[in-house]
Amino acid sequence: MNFLEERILKSGIVKNGGVLEVDSFLNHQIDTQIAEQIGEELCRRFADTKITKVLTIETSGIAIAYPIARMLGVPLVYARKAKSVNTHGDLYVAEIPSANKKTVRRVMVSKEFLQPDDCVLVVDDILANGFTLQGLISIIEAAEATVAGLGIAIEKGMQEGGYRLRNLGYRLESVVVVDEMNPQTGAISFRTAE
Amino acid sequence: MNFLEERILKSGIVKNGGVLEVDSFLNHQIDTQIAEQIGEELCRRFADTKITKVLTIETSGIAIAYPIARMLGVPLVYARKAKSVNTHGDLYVAEIPSANKKTVRRVMVSKEFLQPDDCVLVVDDILANGFTLQGLISIIEAAEATVAGLGIAIEKGMQEGGYRLRNLGYRLESVVVVDEMNPQTGAISFRTAE
Repeated sequence: MNFLEERILKSGIVKNGGVLEVDSFLNHQIDTQIAEQIGEELCRRFADTKITKVLTIETSGIAIAYPIARMLGVPLVYARKAKSVNTHGDLYVAEIPSANKKTVRRVMVSKEFLQPDDCVLVVDDILANGFTLQGLISIIEAAEATVAGLGIAIEKGMQEGGYRLRNLGYRLESVVVVDEMNPQTGAISFRTAE
Repeated sequence: MNFLEERILKSGIVKNGGVLEVDSFLNHQIDTQIAEQIGEELCRRFADTKITKVLTIETSGIAIAYPIARMLGVPLVYARKAKSVNTHGDLYVAEIPSANKKTVRRVMVSKEFLQPDDCVLVVDDILANGFTLQGLISIIEAAEATVAGLGIAIEKGMQEGGYRLRNLGYRLESVVVVDEMNPQTGAISFRTAE
């Protein structure tokens, strides 16, 4: 069992609707020691890849992406959920459907921060249906940059995002894959072999 | 001239309406080396204070607050702008007026992450009118915790937030205070003596 599986068992809360709450150490309150360990592990897994930029999305991806960008010595770019008054110039935009597909949210990255020679590691804290990652990938492709891979802290293996993205040929590394969660008992089982 | 003043002169963009855009190194795209230097400087200024928690607000405060929390070895808590499905339990809520005071946004912190024995350093990237910091302070006070101080990367000295907060007796440390900006010429002048 790795450090993040141990921490999820200790501090994660299984809720109804397939929600794994990690507010006490990864969202809302962040244990930077755990975030650093996640960063080290993902850097190790992508050590054979020349990454020039880390891309994530606000908000909860930032605390995972920050240590990775620092360790790799490359800029961290985060996609924004809404146009800010402080954003100028042309934008790459992706529309990300909500889990129930009833609404979409627009996310955007300034064109000046992604170049065709960039090799981009996409980072996020949690992977479920994969819509967010697909949106970020479409932004990298619009910039004619290269997707180095996808680095995730917690993948929900019972949802189809991970399967779909690996099937599309992307290199996806998740520190933890949760395969089952029981909101009645609180039990969580992890994928042991990848 | 300190490292952040130099970087603002090199990469900041003065826009109309008193906007200083720092998207290329502090918002949107983050230079983690600069964020680490800001963190070191603010840790140095609060070195005489026993801080147990760092509090910021999503989104752009996180990349400043993260290195500070890591250097101090304390948890980082960020106030959320809207109730997330993943947030449970009781919440401290503050209403923060927009700059033109025509709208308010609600920000919240789970009660479990602020305790009366906490001594909290409030961190944000930019201080302008101070409404955000006052909202975060009100949350700390609602928790009956102590405000250790306010640590800011860039204070806009021509707006009243800094003056008001110092006047209220809070210890406010800003790595940079911008006193004047000219959107026509792009000129920026910094406060030299604090």
